[in-house]
Amino acid sequence: MSSHKSHRRRGAAPVSGNPKFYGRHAVYAALDNPDRRLIKLWGTREELGKIVIPEGLAVQFADAADLARYVPKDAPHQGLVLEVAPMEDVWLTDALAVDDDTRPLLILDQVTDPHNVGAIFRTAAAFNAVAVITQDRHAPPESGALAKAASGALEVTPWVRVVNLARALEEIAEAGYWRIGLSGHATATLEQALTPGRNALVLGAEGDGMRHNIEEHCDQLAKLPISEQMESLNVSNAAAIALYAATVRRG
Amino acid sequence: MSSHKSHRRRGAAPVSGNPKFYGRHAVYAALDNPDRRLIKLWGTREELGKIVIPEGLAVQFADAADLARYVPKDAPHQGLVLEVAPMEDVWLTDALAVDDDTRPLLILDQVTDPHNVGAIFRTAAAFNAVAVITQDRHAPPESGALAKAASGALEVTPWVRVVNLARALEEIAEAGYWRIGLSGHATATLEQALTPGRNALVLGAEGDGMRHNIEEHCDQLAKLPISEQMESLNVSNAAAIALYAATVRRG
Repeated sequence: MSSHKSHRRRGAAPVSGNPKFYGRHAVYAALDNPDRRLIKLWGTREELGKIVIPEGLAVQFADAADLARYVPKDAPHQGLVLEVAPMEDVWLTDALAVDDDTRPLLILDQVTDPHNVGAIFRTAAAFNAVAVITQDRHAPPESGALAKAASGALEVTPWVRVVNLARALEEIAEAGYWRIGLSGHATATLEQALTPGRNALVLGAEGDGMRHNIEEHCDQLAKLPISEQMESLNVSNAAAIALYAATVRRG
Repeated sequence: MSSHKSHRRRGAAPVSGNPKFYGRHAVYAALDNPDRRLIKLWGTREELGKIVIPEGLAVQFADAADLARYVPKDAPHQGLVLEVAPMEDVWLTDALAVDDDTRPLLILDQVTDPHNVGAIFRTAAAFNAVAVITQDRHAPPESGALAKAASGALEVTPWVRVVNLARALEEIAEAGYWRIGLSGHATATLEQALTPGRNALVLGAEGDGMRHNIEEHCDQLAKLPISEQMESLNVSNAAAIALYAATVRRG
């Protein structure tokens, strides 16, 4: 590039609001997902040399220092940054139409930390959850950090964003799910609460837990068998345990 | 402060290598732990007003911006920073002397991310694990980020650092523990591997997993029942599931 202006633009963070995924797992999974709209790929020669680049995708070689400008500070980009469009909205009705009693549904009330939400997606995909459901106003958007923690799971597990979570829980019950809310002050254990049929697992934010109105939209509250010396678990760890328990329950 | 020099020093990060804990849970738990050596506490007037300050502890009022200089960028200090000495070494022999078959032992091979190690401590404390065992050279030191993720668990669950993890696993077997290594390429499931007696759960780093030599020092390898669409779980989520499964197994 010859003009001073172009030179200054080189490597500068682009201005679009699209998520920029980074790290091999997140980028490979997005490249492999036919439903994901890809916008532009930046990568080191070494990393770009390892992959088959989809036809028509804009690609730019970049060294590691350039890539670092596209991602949060110290983010482990592993030589690849991919700008994508967020996934199309998935409708609750479509998720609830999945006819498989063995697959749990996961509902998050006001879990906002992108690392936790990403890690929860990873576990949800690992245990073949039907979908992850969040309330639109109280959940993070797709982002590089979230996608990194999800390790490709955003391409696998549908993310249903609803306007009104209480209303969604009513529809979930109508679809035959038993709504189990995880809460430290429950008397039943998770083991006791799980049913042989469809289980919907509801988790609230750390600290405050589920909102009262959301608790009231659960069929049963259940606790994990933790020692009194700790008040609670990290929410992604609690979700992992709940998904595991729902999976093992049916042997 | 009147001199230019003093003014410049105000709020500058101190030079000691001691961990600085931050966030209410981590700081409260350290203040409550009689075995923890406390060095200095900084806090906002509001946060310091909420706690009983141990006799003899050096305390300094600081505003939120000053506190931010003591902790990593964007770390949620919640108005409290506490400089502490790392806990005294805990010996493997002492941990193995705990006479309670119901409590699992957790062994980490080369898990280096402080957030993961901290979250694992939190879950280990929640499930009343005897101790967390790491290899000295391949584990992070106590730090603010680790203590924040541990949410007070560093004050509860002993951390045994050994020089040679393979040798430690031999001692663990001699103490009557059944050593279960979590591995994606195992044939047995975790459910099948758990015993009614003492269970030692061994987890390797994400990506590479356990080192070969460590796998060979397990009595059995076991996998979690995850879908083929995901390669693995986050290590702290895998640890949470393993600790839960070991607890429920005897429920």
